[in-house]
Amino acid sequence: MKVLILGAEGYIGRALYHYLSEEYEVYGVDNYARQRNTQEVGAQSLFPVERNDDIQYLNVCDYEGIRQYIKDIEPDAVVHLAEQPSAPFSMKDYNSCSYTQLNNIQSTLNLLWIAREVPFHLVKLGTMGVYGTPQQEIPETNEPIAYNPASFYHNSKAFDSINIRKACEWWGVSATDLHQGVVYGHLYDTRFDYDSYFGTVVNRFLTQAAMGHPLTVYGKGGQTRGFIHLQNTLECIELAINNPSEGYEVFNQITEIFSINEIANLVSRITGAEIDHIDNPRLEAEDHVYEVKAQKLLDLGLNPIKMENSLWDTYKQVLEHKSNIDKDIILPKTKWS
Amino acid sequence: MKVLILGAEGYIGRALYHYLSEEYEVYGVDNYARQRNTQEVGAQSLFPVERNDDIQYLNVCDYEGIRQYIKDIEPDAVVHLAEQPSAPFSMKDYNSCSYTQLNNIQSTLNLLWIAREVPFHLVKLGTMGVYGTPQQEIPETNEPIAYNPASFYHNSKAFDSINIRKACEWWGVSATDLHQGVVYGHLYDTRFDYDSYFGTVVNRFLTQAAMGHPLTVYGKGGQTRGFIHLQNTLECIELAINNPSEGYEVFNQITEIFSINEIANLVSRITGAEIDHIDNPRLEAEDHVYEVKAQKLLDLGLNPIKMENSLWDTYKQVLEHKSNIDKDIILPKTKWS
Repeated sequence: MKVLILGAEGYIGRALYHYLSEEYEVYGVDNYARQRNTQEVGAQSLFPVERNDDIQYLNVCDYEGIRQYIKDIEPDAVVHLAEQPSAPFSMKDYNSCSYTQLNNIQSTLNLLWIAREVPFHLVKLGTMGVYGTPQQEIPETNEPIAYNPASFYHNSKAFDSINIRKACEWWGVSATDLHQGVVYGHLYDTRFDYDSYFGTVVNRFLTQAAMGHPLTVYGKGGQTRGFIHLQNTLECIELAINNPSEGYEVFNQITEIFSINEIANLVSRITGAEIDHIDNPRLEAEDHVYEVKAQKLLDLGLNPIKMENSLWDTYKQVLEHKSNIDKDIILPKTKWS
Repeated sequence: MKVLILGAEGYIGRALYHYLSEEYEVYGVDNYARQRNTQEVGAQSLFPVERNDDIQYLNVCDYEGIRQYIKDIEPDAVVHLAEQPSAPFSMKDYNSCSYTQLNNIQSTLNLLWIAREVPFHLVKLGTMGVYGTPQQEIPETNEPIAYNPASFYHNSKAFDSINIRKACEWWGVSATDLHQGVVYGHLYDTRFDYDSYFGTVVNRFLTQAAMGHPLTVYGKGGQTRGFIHLQNTLECIELAINNPSEGYEVFNQITEIFSINEIANLVSRITGAEIDHIDNPRLEAEDHVYEVKAQKLLDLGLNPIKMENSLWDTYKQVLEHKSNIDKDIILPKTKWS
């Protein structure tokens, strides 16, 4: 099976390229936006990252370019990881916001028009953040649902989901929309971001612990989210590839649910770090119910990794690169209001 | 009160500029996209349209341009009518689709960032089409709601609504989101489109009647929608301007609900035209419930015009320009699937 990975030099993309290469004919493209965007905010990967020379330089927003490439390759599945993935980056200023939304919407829209012409199974990375924190259980449904996204970045993923669902309905496109929780961990030779823009909370906490800094919880810490280990993310994407949807299919891609306080306690227990609460730069509920239906990937055979069993391994890797830590990039600089 | 109209040379824009000029200090901008887009599909206004020399040439997608203009004018209210408004145009091909979504999303996003910096009341033209045709009554709510839009154009309006609601929440922007039904009628010296891309159904039927052509109902004709006369649209926008919202406010801007068959029967009764059913180029339910809560504008004093009482007046105007009708542009050319 031929799999094309878009954004193959990103955090998930690099690991996925490595992981899938063992069994599939894998192609990858990237335009190195992540590298430019982290540079713009003064950040870089904790672990050194060598450019993968097998990756084709291409911007998915370049319609004719990506269209021709897909027509040449004829992939069975296209995994779209080429979106700007940082919520704080999208809230930073006008340019970052506009770039995030136009990049994300146009890249997905391009793929839908190409899939109409040259059918392939679109596996699209979405986010649990499109749902917000409603009062009732978040369903795992392919039907229209109220989105209450948490940043301009999350909004763009909600837009994608609407475009994808409708293209499936109008054109018979096959697409799997992976609404993923917060991902963490490190595998193979992928990048590891720990700054306030591109670092996700678990990876950021592990880095703070390694440098002997208290774990900085935003606000009360009752914010509750779904989480997933990077290894499970790769497995979910593989499950999606091997189970192409007829039409539009949503998977809620999380394995565990924690509040930020619970995450901080877990990291503290393993690393001995202290915990600090700082002003929450985001506007979000800090004390709320959070129930999620996430059954479909389990039914396909996903074997969840427990966070408490995996943190030590990642922490050891972080400690090995401790000397690379830049402490100035960890605390949040962008406020939502 | 200073009112800035964006898209002041469009169908609603031209009428609104005239209507508001009697009582308000009105400014208008336009980039003449409507003129270019109708030209692209070989169409033009039935009534001759003279360019309004008081209108500033400006693209709302040009962030620095529109930002500087708004800072110079300091409007109390900005009425955003500068989006690409045709559903079939957005479904025509990749370029029209991409243009529609990027134009619409970016123009609204620009205004939100500018409103954060230089507060004004944003009055934004949305569409009832974001809701689709759900099984239950469509509420008139400011809360998140499931959108099931009917074309890439309608999708873009759903995206706008999400961005606007969240900007109101994050930044305290004041915005009124007018989810308008299908508008019809002719006032002042505005344009009158009757082609399959830019002509709305009532105006198109009146034109077919004037040329002695049967009214072409798409499919079974049970498709049911909310409608509003252009005069009522102007009054709704004025009501919105005079009642600035605190935060995000949705008005469902319709006065009557009809199926397409009912519209055809009404036009037929007044004009004597025959009725034909043709293949539906759209993918839509042709037999469904349609109930809508549309109370807020009535509570503010809107006095609904009945379609049956207004059609004759518009029909007389159409008959006067009968010799301009180009029969080749009325039947649909773009299919949804």
